[in-house]
Amino acid sequence: MLENAKKYIDFFYFYHYFLWTIFLKRKRFTFQFVMKLKVLWPGRTRNREIRSLEEHYLNKINQLGKCQLIQVKEAKGINEKFASRIKEIEALELEKRLKDDYIICLFDRGKEMSSLEFARFLEKTASSSGRFITFIVGGFLGLDERLLKRADFLLSLSRMTFSHELSRAVLLEQIYRSLTIIKGRHYAK
Amino acid sequence: MLENAKKYIDFFYFYHYFLWTIFLKRKRFTFQFVMKLKVLWPGRTRNREIRSLEEHYLNKINQLGKCQLIQVKEAKGINEKFASRIKEIEALELEKRLKDDYIICLFDRGKEMSSLEFARFLEKTASSSGRFITFIVGGFLGLDERLLKRADFLLSLSRMTFSHELSRAVLLEQIYRSLTIIKGRHYAK
Repeated sequence: MLENAKKYIDFFYFYHYFLWTIFLKRKRFTFQFVMKLKVLWPGRTRNREIRSLEEHYLNKINQLGKCQLIQVKEAKGINEKFASRIKEIEALELEKRLKDDYIICLFDRGKEMSSLEFARFLEKTASSSGRFITFIVGGFLGLDERLLKRADFLLSLSRMTFSHELSRAVLLEQIYRSLTIIKGRHYAK
Repeated sequence: MLENAKKYIDFFYFYHYFLWTIFLKRKRFTFQFVMKLKVLWPGRTRNREIRSLEEHYLNKINQLGKCQLIQVKEAKGINEKFASRIKEIEALELEKRLKDDYIICLFDRGKEMSSLEFARFLEKTASSSGRFITFIVGGFLGLDERLLKRADFLLSLSRMTFSHELSRAVLLEQIYRSLTIIKGRHYAK
């Protein structure tokens, strides 16, 4: 009789432990939704001030989520006259880092969004596709036509033209801002 | 007779000297068109990276033209709850630096322009009014309603929301870009 009761109690504990585990895991799974982000561009940013600003935002992004920054090899030693050749070489380097990623290219005639729209767009894309979201920012001469065609989305940061280096920093700020919006954090307007 | 000839020669020299002076002055006046620019904001930029980027662009601007940066006193020690009070104090400080300036306030619901349009707009405004062109960027809470009403133009840098500190740096980059466009200099896209 006592033996039997112990079995029941054991079962009771085990059963509830099991239920709670599932419940907690589910909660964890729901709340710790990780967006897989990647940012690609050719060559290290030359402007020292912008470079440290990029690092600043990248650190902030990685406190809230995960974002990889990959600076691929840039085309060096080719005269600027051969712009298409330079863009082609850089496109080849960039393409090596793409698999089945959802590709967003920065392009001055791309689509403009508000920061809120951008955040919702990222959230929706990440959760529906589950793929890496990869941003590509061109070099001094912009991006190769082939990459622009392959992109899933062409994004413009502003009607104004920013230098390609500045737009890298602005993009990172917008990614950080998106994460604060998605996670409901307070961040400067 | 010789006395007379000397007079003629004197007159001849004087006359031509006079003509050339006018001609050169006119040329000088046409080519050395100086745009009087001023940028105002409350409080020093806190983010170190952005601050050094601001300095970087300000130096570049002052190689091509003249731009004064005035950081007026910010409202300190007041709880954020009293937003309108803070904005009012800062507006009073900003207004001390305005005379009959042409005022451009940065405002997120302002007008967007391309960089080329912005350059042409600045050039036209500066040459037609001859007044100081003064840009005002708000603090953390934005600008007081009164200043926005007093402004001659409300400018938006992007549909996206930038932090007020980042938008300072972006504004300076756009002013620099405008000067390169106006002066026909080569600058990164």
